[in-house]
Amino acid sequence: MVNLKLLIERLRTSNAFNRKKAIHPPLKAFADVWNFGATVDPIGDDAAIIKNGDEYLLLSCDGILPQLAEKEPFWSGYCAVLVSVSDIYAMGGKPIAVVNLLSAPDEATSVLIAEGMAEGCRKLGVPMVGGHFFPEEASGVATAILGKTSKLLRATNGKPGQSVIVAIDLNGGRYKDYLQWDSTSFLDTDEMVRKLNIIPLLAELDFVQAARDISNAGILGTLAMLAENSQCGAEVDLSLIPIPDSIDLETWLQIYPGYGFILTVNPEVEQQVIQQFEDEGITANVIGRLTKEMQVVITSLEEKEVFVDFTEESMVVEM
Amino acid sequence: MVNLKLLIERLRTSNAFNRKKAIHPPLKAFADVWNFGATVDPIGDDAAIIKNGDEYLLLSCDGILPQLAEKEPFWSGYCAVLVSVSDIYAMGGKPIAVVNLLSAPDEATSVLIAEGMAEGCRKLGVPMVGGHFFPEEASGVATAILGKTSKLLRATNGKPGQSVIVAIDLNGGRYKDYLQWDSTSFLDTDEMVRKLNIIPLLAELDFVQAARDISNAGILGTLAMLAENSQCGAEVDLSLIPIPDSIDLETWLQIYPGYGFILTVNPEVEQQVIQQFEDEGITANVIGRLTKEMQVVITSLEEKEVFVDFTEESMVVEM
Repeated sequence: MVNLKLLIERLRTSNAFNRKKAIHPPLKAFADVWNFGATVDPIGDDAAIIKNGDEYLLLSCDGILPQLAEKEPFWSGYCAVLVSVSDIYAMGGKPIAVVNLLSAPDEATSVLIAEGMAEGCRKLGVPMVGGHFFPEEASGVATAILGKTSKLLRATNGKPGQSVIVAIDLNGGRYKDYLQWDSTSFLDTDEMVRKLNIIPLLAELDFVQAARDISNAGILGTLAMLAENSQCGAEVDLSLIPIPDSIDLETWLQIYPGYGFILTVNPEVEQQVIQQFEDEGITANVIGRLTKEMQVVITSLEEKEVFVDFTEESMVVEM
Repeated sequence: MVNLKLLIERLRTSNAFNRKKAIHPPLKAFADVWNFGATVDPIGDDAAIIKNGDEYLLLSCDGILPQLAEKEPFWSGYCAVLVSVSDIYAMGGKPIAVVNLLSAPDEATSVLIAEGMAEGCRKLGVPMVGGHFFPEEASGVATAILGKTSKLLRATNGKPGQSVIVAIDLNGGRYKDYLQWDSTSFLDTDEMVRKLNIIPLLAELDFVQAARDISNAGILGTLAMLAENSQCGAEVDLSLIPIPDSIDLETWLQIYPGYGFILTVNPEVEQQVIQQFEDEGITANVIGRLTKEMQVVITSLEEKEVFVDFTEESMVVEM
């Protein structure tokens, strides 16, 4: 039996939830160079959007926590590719190529991180086309990715009344004692790409209004960012969130799920969207809906608590 | 009076010359994911080449030495943008957008590095469209850049008999006591972009066979990479290398020049190419030519020394 108030307090004080705020001061420096030329307003999505003829190029950069790179060099390299590729699919795109930045204190570590990235590339069917290496430095890994799409999904197009669908691959298991769920390392490339291709396919079908991949902000943190970037609030019923049997809810809500997306859709296509995921073995549920009130409200049985009130606190990176 | 033998020995033992070799072990991990899909053989150029319809997209990733980021946060941010943009112009391209990876131990440092990058973006007329920030880590900065071109220049198309032109902007001065020449920080965007646009313009005119921007491997190190990647050798007359009055030759040959390119051209267009640079206030000279012999040979008055013998030692990153 969940104590909703306590659960939400603990989630709100978690590291991942608060880390995002440190970015505000350096980001302000870019106010006048953030968005010009062929770029589309880049705030709210994980990848930048660049108009190129009748298609959109997508460009993003993602790093792995240095502590993870140090302790788990192979896995961190693998995840560095996985998170970048997810950013592209979440926007309805397909990845074209990845470049990397790698630092390591010794040759053995550099090779492990690189082998992890190579495994990620193999698994996700994307080439590693360049990079930069810092020898004799602390372990670190990051990637930048280029993708493209003709049918763009944004995280900013949510509207009150849309249904919120969470799609997570519950297959697999927790990665050691990290806040990470491994639902991908045992898949072959065809399965992996088929699962990811669901998002661009749903975009083509015009079934999705807004989308975002679940990051280490977790399910509720990611939903909060999508909602606020769409200038909405959200209501979520905790009992509807897909969860594996093997894990408790509080841990699960802080986990990076490997394969996980939050979509908002019009209610009439809910079942068709869910079916697409289920056909590939992915669990998808309507967990709530977007609302006019600028807050994310969580319900659990008779309880009801505010998770974030956007009128008091912003999750949005503002310029 | 230069002692050529000693000079070459010291250049060969310099840090920048040897650093490049550390990359070989991690790079081997990427052997089977390096080049597939729409990418063109990526070895030998600073940016990866991706066919996209009738144009080429260029993607690269470049980091600044962590020691520089720590000591000179603003300048390192600025250089992180400058080096990436140079990679794109060197290939006949124009930059579209930059993303960054930033780490800093405290807010003040993060802001300085970001402000340096923003200044670089302003100067070079390119938007910063995304990034990833690691708070509470050692200072570091890197960028990835997307560019495009319809007329591609490669560093691999040199042929024996082509003239080697070095074009360096000698205006400005050394940046503090670093091995860096600042020829850009005092330019306005129009001047800067006009100077850089010379390379794509020469590509359009079909005047250039191979090109590479001068990195911290210096003039001779960069030329050696271009020559070997083109499966040529080179002969260079030291006295023909453009050099500012204020600096000694040994230091100059180790310097990252800010604005500096090595081009190979057919002898009949030498003067037209040089004229293009001179019209923008940039010093350009024929410093030698590509040869059939697989070594880079330096002459100075009556002396002649081998700088690199590719049959004994490779500068090329091999898979």
